[in-house]
Amino acid sequence: MSHTVEILSVGTELLLGNIANTDAQMLSQGLSELGLNVYWHTVVGDNPQRARDAVALAKERADIIITTGGLGPTCDDLTKNVLAEAFGKQLVFDQGSAERIRAYFQRIGRTMTDNNLQQAMLPQGCVILENDWGTAPGCAFEAEGVHVIMLPGPPSECRPMFQYRARPYLLSLSEGVIASHTIKLFGIGESTMEAQLREQMNAMTNPTLAPYAKEGECELRVTAKAATDEEAQALLKPTVEQVKALFGSKVYGVDVPSLEYVVLEGLKAKGLTLGAAESCTGGLIAKRLTDVPGASQAFRGGIVSYTNQVKTSALGVPQEVLDQYGAVSAETAAAMAEGVRRALGCDIALSSTGVAGPDRDDRGNEVGTMFVAIATQEGTHVRALKLGNRPMRERLRTQTASHALDLARRYLSGLDFGA
Amino acid sequence: MSHTVEILSVGTELLLGNIANTDAQMLSQGLSELGLNVYWHTVVGDNPQRARDAVALAKERADIIITTGGLGPTCDDLTKNVLAEAFGKQLVFDQGSAERIRAYFQRIGRTMTDNNLQQAMLPQGCVILENDWGTAPGCAFEAEGVHVIMLPGPPSECRPMFQYRARPYLLSLSEGVIASHTIKLFGIGESTMEAQLREQMNAMTNPTLAPYAKEGECELRVTAKAATDEEAQALLKPTVEQVKALFGSKVYGVDVPSLEYVVLEGLKAKGLTLGAAESCTGGLIAKRLTDVPGASQAFRGGIVSYTNQVKTSALGVPQEVLDQYGAVSAETAAAMAEGVRRALGCDIALSSTGVAGPDRDDRGNEVGTMFVAIATQEGTHVRALKLGNRPMRERLRTQTASHALDLARRYLSGLDFGA
Repeated sequence: MSHTVEILSVGTELLLGNIANTDAQMLSQGLSELGLNVYWHTVVGDNPQRARDAVALAKERADIIITTGGLGPTCDDLTKNVLAEAFGKQLVFDQGSAERIRAYFQRIGRTMTDNNLQQAMLPQGCVILENDWGTAPGCAFEAEGVHVIMLPGPPSECRPMFQYRARPYLLSLSEGVIASHTIKLFGIGESTMEAQLREQMNAMTNPTLAPYAKEGECELRVTAKAATDEEAQALLKPTVEQVKALFGSKVYGVDVPSLEYVVLEGLKAKGLTLGAAESCTGGLIAKRLTDVPGASQAFRGGIVSYTNQVKTSALGVPQEVLDQYGAVSAETAAAMAEGVRRALGCDIALSSTGVAGPDRDDRGNEVGTMFVAIATQEGTHVRALKLGNRPMRERLRTQTASHALDLARRYLSGLDFGA
Repeated sequence: MSHTVEILSVGTELLLGNIANTDAQMLSQGLSELGLNVYWHTVVGDNPQRARDAVALAKERADIIITTGGLGPTCDDLTKNVLAEAFGKQLVFDQGSAERIRAYFQRIGRTMTDNNLQQAMLPQGCVILENDWGTAPGCAFEAEGVHVIMLPGPPSECRPMFQYRARPYLLSLSEGVIASHTIKLFGIGESTMEAQLREQMNAMTNPTLAPYAKEGECELRVTAKAATDEEAQALLKPTVEQVKALFGSKVYGVDVPSLEYVVLEGLKAKGLTLGAAESCTGGLIAKRLTDVPGASQAFRGGIVSYTNQVKTSALGVPQEVLDQYGAVSAETAAAMAEGVRRALGCDIALSSTGVAGPDRDDRGNEVGTMFVAIATQEGTHVRALKLGNRPMRERLRTQTASHALDLARRYLSGLDFGA
């Protein structure tokens, strides 16, 4: 049976624009992967009448309703009250949930006010979804042919509650298991990737192939459904291999969190250290590497040389190079990488220099003119980039940092340095 | 008359979770500031029947419908077709819009395919909202007592289209003008700020006072409505002054984009230069400063000393300091700031060192133990932070970078260094 899902989010803060509805995005992604069709997102405020209206509508047009928000004491547990009423259920006190709420407050060392215990009032006969990440338990029940799942609103609770509580419940509705792998690519545009895969994607039903684009990188998620995990994996394997073969060295990993993570793992595996000299990226390469816990095992540090004076004094870029070729040049990028490699005594060094905008530089280089370099014991390689002047400063910097990291990734994997 | 707004977003990519509905957030914020009540957000996919159903509902329960998405050639201009049909309007070809679309393609140097011209089909008698940021024009009309405004979906188009096209249209619906100021604070929690202002906020009707919290900072938006801008400003002024007096040096600016912007402006005004030595923030201070266009006028650069070796070699932190006090200590933070000030020859230097997690450091310092320092010609000051171990690594690093920037901001404004 094909299920139809409505995501109903309850919270005035969404209608005031204080926060974006990232819960709905996260849930939509997770539900798509389960093969469930999300046809509606609805947001209402902490208003009982409009919440009732929204539930009445959802009940008509969906057979799975997933709510987020409106479970805590500050909103009088609006969502639970409205949903229980809509499906003719009583709310009953659940002793186990009350104890968990008490224990939660003890753990974080704060005093529990009594209104917190109303969170232990739950629809009679529901499946309780224990909340290990906050106070309000979620719940799930089936009534009148509709499955209702209620999740807390804070994203730091909603995400794990979906992953570890709602997802298993939803899996039990469908027969078999769902498994997926995410293939990460760098150095190819989303539209090019899609064009190469479109026919195949449209022809596939199990596994399915879904593209995503994020911050100048691409992802392909392959998802299969089967009776057992083994069978699902067997379905996935040929597609993963096929995609890897198709995109070759543009694939930087499968089921890995990020390019910087892959670089750090490569460094640790080889016992090598890394440093960075950054001009246009202004610290972003270092920031991204140190976003990864444990980066200090391989990342030594970096020098942000935002002025020519720092390029000469801290990095030893020769004044003649700056005079002759300018700060935004392949020669300067190379000298910066070599300079920081020397200064920090690391095995591999990356550098970036370019025009992030909004204006051209004083030599007339256009916005988006970028150079990234890698220096190793084998020599120095520079990649010149023309990123165009349409993207924003932020995106230009992110893409440039990714290109620098890509040089390190390719070096560590024994690949050519690519385009 | 009090208006009721529904935001209707059309796009399968939202239902698949490929993107979050940031358009709805941006619009909700802007509409709240105009004193308009947003009661519903609805999302449907590129599906004519569900779009029709959604419009029929919105028409019943709102008197302003704002749509996003579904205007481009790839979705057959779904939104325009459905809205025109719902209000019994014809779509007619608009020569001016066609020429703008042609000119847009010429400007970006791409060939225009013919299907782009269907974007010039617009509801008869509508107000055309010219799109200077993309191809699909928006439009607005009133019919059957309902105002309909259609905006393109890509956030880079939707935001300016709201700001420069829809907002003036909406302002013309209400009498008078709306003006607002945003007061930015650092060093106070949102709940503390709200507690100090709650009674006042609830008692106010014109101007109104709305709090926002972002990434460890707080904002207060003061909004007034009046017949003229002068009258609105006169209403705003006493509240802005009152808030500034109430929160004192925690207020870092009014209508300024960010803490780093304020620091850079302060430096430029005094003709001073800045550098940074970063351990736990790993480049984030430099990255944030260089997010601001023109940062190179005052920001010299930085050294990311992620290992002790770099702290000694590049920053000259004495080995004895590291041995005796550890890398995470007030003494090391001070030596780092002094070291980078010397190394880069800048007037003011900032530093950070701490435990960003997920684990304690090898001296047993808990996650969230942070030190930031400022070194100037007058001496060095260290701020010790206990940020707790509940927030995520990312947030700990952001807060620590903000504390460092706050030291610079306070120094440049002649304030004490605060808590």
